[in-house]
Amino acid sequence: MANKVLIYSRFPRTMMARFAERFELLDTAGKPAREVFSAEELGGIRAMLTAGGTPLGAEAMDLFPKLGAVVCYGTGYDGVDLKAAAARNIAVGHSPGANAASVADIAMTLMLATTRRILVADQYVRSGDWASSKQSPMMRPQAGMPGRRIGVYGMGEIGRKIAARCAAFESEVGYFSRTKHDLPYQYFPTLEALADWCSVLMIAVRAGAETQHVVNADILKRLGAVGYVVNISRGSVIDERALVAALSDKTIAGAGLDVYETEPHAPDALTALPNVVFAPHIGGHTLDSHVAMQNCVIANLEAYFAGKPLPYSVRES
Amino acid sequence: MANKVLIYSRFPRTMMARFAERFELLDTAGKPAREVFSAEELGGIRAMLTAGGTPLGAEAMDLFPKLGAVVCYGTGYDGVDLKAAAARNIAVGHSPGANAASVADIAMTLMLATTRRILVADQYVRSGDWASSKQSPMMRPQAGMPGRRIGVYGMGEIGRKIAARCAAFESEVGYFSRTKHDLPYQYFPTLEALADWCSVLMIAVRAGAETQHVVNADILKRLGAVGYVVNISRGSVIDERALVAALSDKTIAGAGLDVYETEPHAPDALTALPNVVFAPHIGGHTLDSHVAMQNCVIANLEAYFAGKPLPYSVRES
Repeated sequence: MANKVLIYSRFPRTMMARFAERFELLDTAGKPAREVFSAEELGGIRAMLTAGGTPLGAEAMDLFPKLGAVVCYGTGYDGVDLKAAAARNIAVGHSPGANAASVADIAMTLMLATTRRILVADQYVRSGDWASSKQSPMMRPQAGMPGRRIGVYGMGEIGRKIAARCAAFESEVGYFSRTKHDLPYQYFPTLEALADWCSVLMIAVRAGAETQHVVNADILKRLGAVGYVVNISRGSVIDERALVAALSDKTIAGAGLDVYETEPHAPDALTALPNVVFAPHIGGHTLDSHVAMQNCVIANLEAYFAGKPLPYSVRES
Repeated sequence: MANKVLIYSRFPRTMMARFAERFELLDTAGKPAREVFSAEELGGIRAMLTAGGTPLGAEAMDLFPKLGAVVCYGTGYDGVDLKAAAARNIAVGHSPGANAASVADIAMTLMLATTRRILVADQYVRSGDWASSKQSPMMRPQAGMPGRRIGVYGMGEIGRKIAARCAAFESEVGYFSRTKHDLPYQYFPTLEALADWCSVLMIAVRAGAETQHVVNADILKRLGAVGYVVNISRGSVIDERALVAALSDKTIAGAGLDVYETEPHAPDALTALPNVVFAPHIGGHTLDSHVAMQNCVIANLEAYFAGKPLPYSVRES
């Protein structure tokens, strides 16, 4: 008989197909588990699959007395209360690095699309404005990539891949992270210093309580009027109200966003802005990235049910 | 007295500001020179500034008996009849490499925007479809960059910069050009072989009579249903009708275009397609690229008026 796995977050069914071949899935479709399954069914649950951003605290864990493994689909695990899990002897797994290239690539896509104003450009051609030689202030030439100062906030696997890609564009790369790494990029000891130096801030930090709203009005102001911010980490890292204000009053030039404070909602004041390129949290959303993340999920769940330690375990840092 | 320079193509006035400080400009604004200036004025013209794509043949050259230098703004000079110029002892200059990074960057922007479907993604967030969990077939995961086979057609300065950028995205890079270069990318002896191998074709070849419509229905078919074509060279290299057909019937997955057969016009059948990202020939359109191109123009014109050879001269290959 197949082992049971509770699907705790809302995932498209196609993403679950490979898991369904190996495990018996109890899919909540993102609804409260108690509304969908009986207390008896939930009482037997030993493992669950969740999205790292979905809140999962002590109270929720206590609904599942036999729970021994929480496996996150993807790199993030910011929604999981790691202390509560440790106290209950629940192992927490994720997919480290499996989506790093895909996420770094959406960061590059958003940066280039924003700085080269590709939405405006596309519309300028489609509308016939180009053919009729209509002037477009938004199409004025902008700074290019060579020599541009790109600041990377966070130097994990995704940050490193963003930095390597930016270097290939002949840009100068600087970074801020808690520790200085042996890397050929200029290190800044504070986010403030990085923001003063760079004109594009790429947010690639692992999100958590300590990164809540660290990109605030002050940091945005330091980027300046030709500055851009790109966020592919978590919406919580940016103070979204301060971002809307900075974009509206031209404190910064633009933004590229894949993540938002309360997904899947992006505030109307934000989505009405012309100087932003939006993506619906598709950073890790490529075929190869999904396969790699699924491989980690399957390896974690199979190890757990075999009584072994999770091969892709979250280590609290 | 400042030397006179005829502005033969239509350029925004802001782009001409630095030239106006050094030369007396006779600006046709893209109209036939004889409609704008008297025969006497034109008879005295010794140098002109043109856009490389603007047709400039023997007959047009003969309107200016004293013409000794044709200087192209940018890298391209496909509109200039080099044989006719040589027969009249007219030097032809351009701005080699000055915009290579900027053009390579728009190629990367178009490739990433197209393959990651950034127009659809942006609209999915802005429209509220994401917030209301509306299904979007266009948002299905696509192949990512790592391991993707990128074919670069043309290995001049722009092609090399595209190849270096793609390599940083962990893609496999292959190329076709007339000659094999000492480069760490797989060489293909024909465009057909390159198109069979790659899933993204990046057109970076120098355009001319021999490249007219070489990317035709057959080449597009070889790219296949998950294939993309990106053109930042000249519109003439692609058979635009074959491209519209291939995009419409899903022979290929999509395209990213900065150039068109008859600019500034893009056919309605093309601009109506959802699987294309358009840009209005802005490849070289960055602040740093314009400065670099202007430096070449000024150096060419000043050398010419000083009786010296053009430092950035077109060499027929």
